[in-house]
Amino acid sequence: MYTSDTQIRVRYAETDQMNVVYYGNYAQYFEVGRVEAIRQLGLSYKDMEASGVIMPVVEFTAKYLRPARYDDLLTVRTTLKDCPVDHRITFHQEVYNQEGKLLTTGKVSLYFLKKDTMARTGIPDYLAEKLAPYF
Amino acid sequence: MYTSDTQIRVRYAETDQMNVVYYGNYAQYFEVGRVEAIRQLGLSYKDMEASGVIMPVVEFTAKYLRPARYDDLLTVRTTLKDCPVDHRITFHQEVYNQEGKLLTTGKVSLYFLKKDTMARTGIPDYLAEKLAPYF
Amino acid sequence: MYTSDTQIRVRYAETDQMNVVYYGNYAQYFEVGRVEAIRQLGLSYKDMEASGVIMPVVEFTAKYLRPARYDDLLTVRTTLKDCPVDHRITFHQEVYNQEGKLLTTGKVSLYFLKKDTMARTGIPDYLAEKLAPYF
Amino acid sequence: MYTSDTQIRVRYAETDQMNVVYYGNYAQYFEVGRVEAIRQLGLSYKDMEASGVIMPVVEFTAKYLRPARYDDLLTVRTTLKDCPVDHRITFHQEVYNQEGKLLTTGKVSLYFLKKDTMARTGIPDYLAEKLAPYF
Repeated sequence: MYTSDTQIRVRYAETDQMNVVYYGNYAQYFEVGRVEAIRQLGLSYKDMEASGVIMPVVEFTAKYLRPARYDDLLTVRTTLKDCPVDHRITFHQEVYNQEGKLLTTGKVSLYFLKKDTMARTGIPDYLAEKLAPYF
Repeated sequence: MYTSDTQIRVRYAETDQMNVVYYGNYAQYFEVGRVEAIRQLGLSYKDMEASGVIMPVVEFTAKYLRPARYDDLLTVRTTLKDCPVDHRITFHQEVYNQEGKLLTTGKVSLYFLKKDTMARTGIPDYLAEKLAPYF
Repeated sequence: MYTSDTQIRVRYAETDQMNVVYYGNYAQYFEVGRVEAIRQLGLSYKDMEASGVIMPVVEFTAKYLRPARYDDLLTVRTTLKDCPVDHRITFHQEVYNQEGKLLTTGKVSLYFLKKDTMARTGIPDYLAEKLAPYF
Repeated sequence: MYTSDTQIRVRYAETDQMNVVYYGNYAQYFEVGRVEAIRQLGLSYKDMEASGVIMPVVEFTAKYLRPARYDDLLTVRTTLKDCPVDHRITFHQEVYNQEGKLLTTGKVSLYFLKKDTMARTGIPDYLAEKLAPYF
């Protein structure tokens, strides 16, 4: 299992008139969590794209337990429970506020695609190598 | 069953550097679909809030089958398969492009809450009455 | 002078906890206004990009006179006071609510650039021809 | 003069299909810059709102010199050139990338308003005191 934490400060723009973070904005928080999880492995998603592999989202689920509020300092926890064995990778994601309360849980699945042909491909070797010690 | 269609033109801001609509933006498209579904019943969500009932999202799922692209004229189809019997309401949502291709499917559950106390409440009578003929 | 009107319904996502539209979202409203202004000429910005000309924004100003609110049906008025004579085009933009109140004024300047080289270029002939009758 | 720097990592969601940060998203970057400028004084905008003073934006200008790109680590520099003497406060804002290149300059003016009456008010004493040493 590989787990990574990253912090995000809630922006004013991300609130709505219900005085909470708009439900759609968690997709961005989860994205930041995934990108930082990859960076903490010593890689970068930006470099992955540059080297020819893109990772579009194919499935997204979220449960909203408690609201996040303006200026909250959130912790986004991103977990890989399994090392991907084919073109699909699934991240489990949780958002906590500064009091340690669990606000949101989610699961995001992405495909590995070759950027030039959009054909499915396996997990890149450099990513598999970095993940191997955790599984 | 109650079904409603509404159209949305994809904005440049909604694309990302993968040349498709960012996956998080479908939450907004689904929101517009739900709001217009209520408006087509002769009600408005704005008035519901003003009369004391808010509807926060508690669960969200989406499957991304095909990408939406800049300037696409999308049809958002919003369906209630069951009339809500308690504080929870679930919308089934689909997004089609101008060629009739199904791009995205989703399901969004919301709670009816009293705005002043944030306590769960049932579906408002005026909404239940408007929906009754469809079930 | 060329003027075009288009309508936009304020989305819940576009409000913030001040119960008004977040100031940054007017950039999207103005974008929609410009794109529809071009469409009303019988062209499309999407096709312009496909034919090799992109139009990045180089300058943006906005004055916020009155707030827009959730579910408002806004009119975005987009005006070209002068036909562009070089690589720069400037749109004057106004946002009105459904009561005819002027909410926001703005001015957005963009460059015509060749997509492949990012070099400045003049206004495309097909756009100049469509605009000519108005000046 | 009071100057504050804060860093922002560009999110995938903030790019558009021109492969750069969408021009409207700088409003959020500038907002983060202002909020962190206030935090670095030992105050918080969140507390200001809670104590009854809100600060809506009344004017916004930006010049886009060079594009920001996905995953750039931006520095947002926020400067008060003058201490506000009435209900208006003006921030000068600059965005640099990780190579020290100036990407964007802007100016944002806000009003101090009483939250309950929306009447204009002067700068709160606690903010004026914190700023006094810099002018």
